[in-house]
Amino acid sequence: MIMDTIAAISTPLGEGGISVIRVSGGEAVPLVERVFQSKVKLSEAATHTVHYGNIIVPATKDRVEEVLVTVMRAPRSFTMEDVVEVSCHGGIVSVKKVLDLLLLQGIRLAEPGEFTKRAFLNGRIDLTQAEAVIDLIRAKSDRAFSIALKQVEGNLSKQIKVIRHQLVELMAHIEVNIDYPEHDVEEMTNAYIHEKGTAALAHIDMLLHTAQQGKILREGIETAIVGRPNVGKSSLLNELAQENRAIVTDVPGTTRDVISEFVNVGGIPLKLLDTAGIRETSDIVEQIGVERSRVALAEADLILLVISRSEELLPDEVELMRQLAGKQTIVIINKIDLPSKLDMNQILAYFPQERIVEVSLVEGTGMDGLEKAISGIFFEGKLEAGDLTYVSNIRHIHLLKQARASLEDGLQANEEHTPIDILQIDLRSAWEYLGEIIGDSVGESLIDQIFTQFCLGK
Amino acid sequence: MIMDTIAAISTPLGEGGISVIRVSGGEAVPLVERVFQSKVKLSEAATHTVHYGNIIVPATKDRVEEVLVTVMRAPRSFTMEDVVEVSCHGGIVSVKKVLDLLLLQGIRLAEPGEFTKRAFLNGRIDLTQAEAVIDLIRAKSDRAFSIALKQVEGNLSKQIKVIRHQLVELMAHIEVNIDYPEHDVEEMTNAYIHEKGTAALAHIDMLLHTAQQGKILREGIETAIVGRPNVGKSSLLNELAQENRAIVTDVPGTTRDVISEFVNVGGIPLKLLDTAGIRETSDIVEQIGVERSRVALAEADLILLVISRSEELLPDEVELMRQLAGKQTIVIINKIDLPSKLDMNQILAYFPQERIVEVSLVEGTGMDGLEKAISGIFFEGKLEAGDLTYVSNIRHIHLLKQARASLEDGLQANEEHTPIDILQIDLRSAWEYLGEIIGDSVGESLIDQIFTQFCLGK
Repeated sequence: MIMDTIAAISTPLGEGGISVIRVSGGEAVPLVERVFQSKVKLSEAATHTVHYGNIIVPATKDRVEEVLVTVMRAPRSFTMEDVVEVSCHGGIVSVKKVLDLLLLQGIRLAEPGEFTKRAFLNGRIDLTQAEAVIDLIRAKSDRAFSIALKQVEGNLSKQIKVIRHQLVELMAHIEVNIDYPEHDVEEMTNAYIHEKGTAALAHIDMLLHTAQQGKILREGIETAIVGRPNVGKSSLLNELAQENRAIVTDVPGTTRDVISEFVNVGGIPLKLLDTAGIRETSDIVEQIGVERSRVALAEADLILLVISRSEELLPDEVELMRQLAGKQTIVIINKIDLPSKLDMNQILAYFPQERIVEVSLVEGTGMDGLEKAISGIFFEGKLEAGDLTYVSNIRHIHLLKQARASLEDGLQANEEHTPIDILQIDLRSAWEYLGEIIGDSVGESLIDQIFTQFCLGK
Repeated sequence: MIMDTIAAISTPLGEGGISVIRVSGGEAVPLVERVFQSKVKLSEAATHTVHYGNIIVPATKDRVEEVLVTVMRAPRSFTMEDVVEVSCHGGIVSVKKVLDLLLLQGIRLAEPGEFTKRAFLNGRIDLTQAEAVIDLIRAKSDRAFSIALKQVEGNLSKQIKVIRHQLVELMAHIEVNIDYPEHDVEEMTNAYIHEKGTAALAHIDMLLHTAQQGKILREGIETAIVGRPNVGKSSLLNELAQENRAIVTDVPGTTRDVISEFVNVGGIPLKLLDTAGIRETSDIVEQIGVERSRVALAEADLILLVISRSEELLPDEVELMRQLAGKQTIVIINKIDLPSKLDMNQILAYFPQERIVEVSLVEGTGMDGLEKAISGIFFEGKLEAGDLTYVSNIRHIHLLKQARASLEDGLQANEEHTPIDILQIDLRSAWEYLGEIIGDSVGESLIDQIFTQFCLGK
């Protein structure tokens, strides 16, 4: 496949020490060389070497920027093509100037994800690995990152390939049987299909079993913090944010409204809803019943209800507990450093003991209980990323379910002694669905759709 | 000077294709090597080479991230020390994990600007060059960037050195004269001091003359857009923003309030005030007189008053013109594609012709007139970055003024035939002030103060 040469800014835009422009394609080296002034001729540079020099306007020799240029020749590069990386001073103007100059040389601006797409199209990685690259970038916690990294390494692909191999063996066995359709062979074949097909089904189920948890680790648990004024909601927010200072992050976008706040508790990312509400107003009771709070509560996967142990419950709080009793709620009893005025039985009437966590946010104690309670709700208490392959991508989950349905149809047909070549169709379609996951049989439009979810420059 | 090994994330935090951690110091190579698994031994790697491999936890061999590691050995590096750059997948978690692991090996987290500080302390660049590195990163327009790049190259330093050299010659001449204090020599010396001193003063004045423009190019013109509803304020904003899509930028910070919007018009950066007001409300007339608008108008260096040509002026608009007549205001007459109902004499009563620009924001015409008008106000119509050295840094301006005052005192003393060794003191202090600009005679606390203005990782 002959592809043109593309370029994009690969580092996030903003003020920083270094910005990198990545260029990939057959003409990457000669096209960058046109604007690069250095002691070394780029076209003669060895692969994986770095060169100091200036980016200049070729016609006027005007210096545009002081840079380091790295050459990585095909196939030993991210895309398996010739790659040149231009490392500029940080800031926005610098990289933009250099990029503009490169585009003037006939290099095309890369589309989002186009570098990774080339790595896929050139066969360096399969589709699950490519998709995991987005997950790596977007990961909101260590665990989410580890899972994505395992997928980049090809863990999921390996398992999909194992199942597909089982199905191919089955199909081959049936193929032989179609050619020699004797009764006793068919009997044996039925038993064989049942055994092998059920094993494949179990393997698919095992993967699907990880899906909910995988999705949570990937996208975070949408979490609302509620409670009446002065029970410690802001302190809880700060305590959560403090432990994860670097993870509390803005998702850059065109408007200010899309800012989400992530914290992580024992590696589980929580996406905090309406934290502005908590920070801006000190009077949340007034807001209970207000549209905004109701929306946050309705959307939340998890509700953290904060209650003060040093005061008696107000009727409003009892009413709130009644409403939240059916939902995934953890009651955080704050101020355990102070004398108790709280009747615990009132709380136990709505929530089991394991959903109640006692903390002192002033002293910063008891937060490990929160971690345990969350893990109890979403991970049955077992949160071991270990070597487990988590399926977290909606597309994968959807295809696994389709493969599962086809395989189940086939097994059903097998029980009913349906003609074996019809059964073959079901197995084949299960095999194809699984192939779509790793990108073995996907159309161009799907590929385009997958890669446009990437950020620019990857 | 023996310095420890430091590390920091050098790319802006956010979602992107690449994040880079920079490590600098005598132990950079062996300390990174501890966590780097690759075919190549980092300690044996040649300078300016790139190596693919994994970052691993040394004890468990757990893979943390897939990286490219670049080695640049002293003195051929940014800091003149051994530098190792670790290039990770983009995103926040990845770099943070790798950085944490590096810090565990005994590498210290770098302070803001510490890499550039080392480049200065190790003598690769002088203080004006180091300071220009911040300006490069923060540059809001091409021109601001070019000016900073020239300063990085040492343009300002060269001029300061020329003036200092003149002063040294003067002082040497006087020194000789002190040893041979005969009357006719003194006469000659007076004339000589007058001639040389006046030349040095003129040179300082020339530099100071660029200061206001330099400051504008560096920090932007604070600009307010005003006008009654539906005259095209939002269209103007969009037209300005559209031409500079990548320059419209958020300044990352801890709160959402610090977001500033920069656009640039013909290379002059405008810092737009209260753009939220323009976007959010369609009824600015109601807001005239409102605190927010008044503050914006009072703070602005430049006011863009938008008026529609297709309607007659309202009394409110005439009042606004009256208020703005004394200020640096450009009147933008929009909708020149529509029939005119406007009495131009009403506008000419308050503003000269060269402050009036006619545009059609619907058709996108006439914007070059705005550029000319702005350049007319702030650059006397001559906006040629060319080879001119702009002094834009407050610290430099301040020191230049102090040097100028000392030199002037000296010249005054010379006219008054003050004893020549007293005059010598003035010359010496002028020479020292100039030295502070390039970092020749500055204290540690000043250096610290300068470099803490940097972003992390530079």
